[in-house]
Amino acid sequence: MVYNFSAGPSMLPPEVLEECQNEFLNYKNSGMSVFEINHRSTLFNEIIDEAEQNLRYLMNIPDNYKVLFLQGGASLQFSAIPMNIMKKKKAGFILTGHWAERAYEEARMFGETVVLASSKDRNYSYIPSCDNLPSINNLDYIHICENNTIYGTQFHNIPKVGNIDLVSDQSSCILSKPIDVSKYALIFAGAQKNMGPSGVTIVIIRDDLVTDDVLEGTPYVMRYRNQVDNKSRYNTPSCYGIYVCGKVFKWLKKMGGLEEIEKLNTKKAKLLYEFLDNNRLFKATADKESRSTMNVTFTTGNSKMDMEIVEDSKKYGFVSIKGHRFVGGLRASLYNAIPIEYVEALIEYLEKWGGYNIYYSSKAYTLQMF
Amino acid sequence: MVYNFSAGPSMLPPEVLEECQNEFLNYKNSGMSVFEINHRSTLFNEIIDEAEQNLRYLMNIPDNYKVLFLQGGASLQFSAIPMNIMKKKKAGFILTGHWAERAYEEARMFGETVVLASSKDRNYSYIPSCDNLPSINNLDYIHICENNTIYGTQFHNIPKVGNIDLVSDQSSCILSKPIDVSKYALIFAGAQKNMGPSGVTIVIIRDDLVTDDVLEGTPYVMRYRNQVDNKSRYNTPSCYGIYVCGKVFKWLKKMGGLEEIEKLNTKKAKLLYEFLDNNRLFKATADKESRSTMNVTFTTGNSKMDMEIVEDSKKYGFVSIKGHRFVGGLRASLYNAIPIEYVEALIEYLEKWGGYNIYYSSKAYTLQMF
Repeated sequence: MVYNFSAGPSMLPPEVLEECQNEFLNYKNSGMSVFEINHRSTLFNEIIDEAEQNLRYLMNIPDNYKVLFLQGGASLQFSAIPMNIMKKKKAGFILTGHWAERAYEEARMFGETVVLASSKDRNYSYIPSCDNLPSINNLDYIHICENNTIYGTQFHNIPKVGNIDLVSDQSSCILSKPIDVSKYALIFAGAQKNMGPSGVTIVIIRDDLVTDDVLEGTPYVMRYRNQVDNKSRYNTPSCYGIYVCGKVFKWLKKMGGLEEIEKLNTKKAKLLYEFLDNNRLFKATADKESRSTMNVTFTTGNSKMDMEIVEDSKKYGFVSIKGHRFVGGLRASLYNAIPIEYVEALIEYLEKWGGYNIYYSSKAYTLQMF
Repeated sequence: MVYNFSAGPSMLPPEVLEECQNEFLNYKNSGMSVFEINHRSTLFNEIIDEAEQNLRYLMNIPDNYKVLFLQGGASLQFSAIPMNIMKKKKAGFILTGHWAERAYEEARMFGETVVLASSKDRNYSYIPSCDNLPSINNLDYIHICENNTIYGTQFHNIPKVGNIDLVSDQSSCILSKPIDVSKYALIFAGAQKNMGPSGVTIVIIRDDLVTDDVLEGTPYVMRYRNQVDNKSRYNTPSCYGIYVCGKVFKWLKKMGGLEEIEKLNTKKAKLLYEFLDNNRLFKATADKESRSTMNVTFTTGNSKMDMEIVEDSKKYGFVSIKGHRFVGGLRASLYNAIPIEYVEALIEYLEKWGGYNIYYSSKAYTLQMF
């Protein structure tokens, strides 16, 4: 028994894994594993079609949006997006951390890029205000990273972008709550946090952006037109990964969909943040109003002690509570599959470091363990 | 029980799948599945390092070659290769089918491309002579597709390229026999035929070709320098896919390595070709000296009858003996994992169409079933 708080690849729902294991050698009585099924066969058509339908249902994706199951990771989209949709060769970026920066830097190869807002001044510990973005009218699109895994921040309202297309990297928050897809032009996400195994990248794109008019030098696999026309099979996709994603989508439906999972996610995050706020040893690192529901970053303020806790926690079955190497400290990722009991166990464990009963009693704090 | 002759994704060794199934929920007593393990963890480091070591052992890869486990399919390499190594902006291509053509067309976005030889005149049913290629001295590299899945042809000798770098797409023949890696500058292959699940692409590249001097507009994920420096983890790779590939490599070692698998592959192909050559209903479509050991393409010469056979064969457990949609006819892919018993079963089945005992007796032919 372990408590896996990894930032990704991360925990998958046990029911999903058990189902995959059961049909591992013989999928739907075909005599074959899903690994062995041709990607243009009826059996695989059903897998990918059903996965798409369930994703459309869960996210309430409008009909004028296409859904793609691609390879290459969200990082490949940092080039694919400008290559496909940067027609006027000018895009805006809101810098809220490493992944937004990476997207910004990569897009510079293809046109002019403008920083519209940034929270770099305080090491990305907050989401900058995006209510009055500077002159954005001539932009092809505005790019955000909606949840920042490394820094534990999240956009709780999407930026006011007027009629400019909004592109959102939702790698670490997709499917964690209901959203209005129609407010976005393009949503993309690596699967390895809330959807399934690494190696699958979801792209949800408004269909008017799927055109043949792409930048010269756009690899054929990366052209949305090619992938849309071939239902994500311009070339062989990551078949097994798509199959597991499909299982996770079904599990989410069974859980009650995104409304219900949001309640659970909110409850889990609230529990941990309340502990951190009422404990004098640990503190959450992100500004309160910018806190992520998915990735809770915190620290004792003492990097040596943080590392000691990481090491010690392993003895009790805690996996990956180490903060990202760029920021240090501690982190617990509370993706959809994490049960609330894991969060309770983590709090109980952390309490031992922070002084017994300090969370529940809020009494004077003594650091008993040092 | 089925006989899976799919051209890819295709059959995997049953022992490998059983091992994966056994440790599906709890990998090495970690309490986690391989899907849930962080790609920078010690556990995953071991998986990818061991996979690389075993691949190096099997193929006897010299130390001055790098091995990468990438995403995007072999098709993404059609752009990645020129973007990374087309320094003089001129490359040569030997057109032996659809995939060589695709690579040729895609490379045209990045520089001048020259057709050095082609077998298009007879619908790619043979490998053109490559002993006296025209003026190649000023080329960055020469690209070949070493085994042509669709047309059932294979290079049995690599082209005489002098000191020009040879780039080889080995998607459907990698690991099927020993090769001299040092004769190539770059070898690439999708995993879904002889190595593992779709979603993993292997690149084996001579280290002097891994440079920062890439074409402007090369996506960061596609820069070999970035992936080499980060041991295939510039971004999150297809972790589970790499794990399965690693298992297949171990299985191949246990089978006796590439010398032994070559013997078995030769035996399987010989059996089927001999049947086809001695049966008056079916004939192999590729020229004798160009025949592929991996993909045996054949036909009755009557497309309606071919289709009837495809449909009827399903009742007896044969999967994917339909020829590729570009050429029609029939095809049996005899990758490493296919046991010789499958080939025998296929021959026995085909004999029923071709007249009883015609294969063994070579007597006068009567089409008994029509």
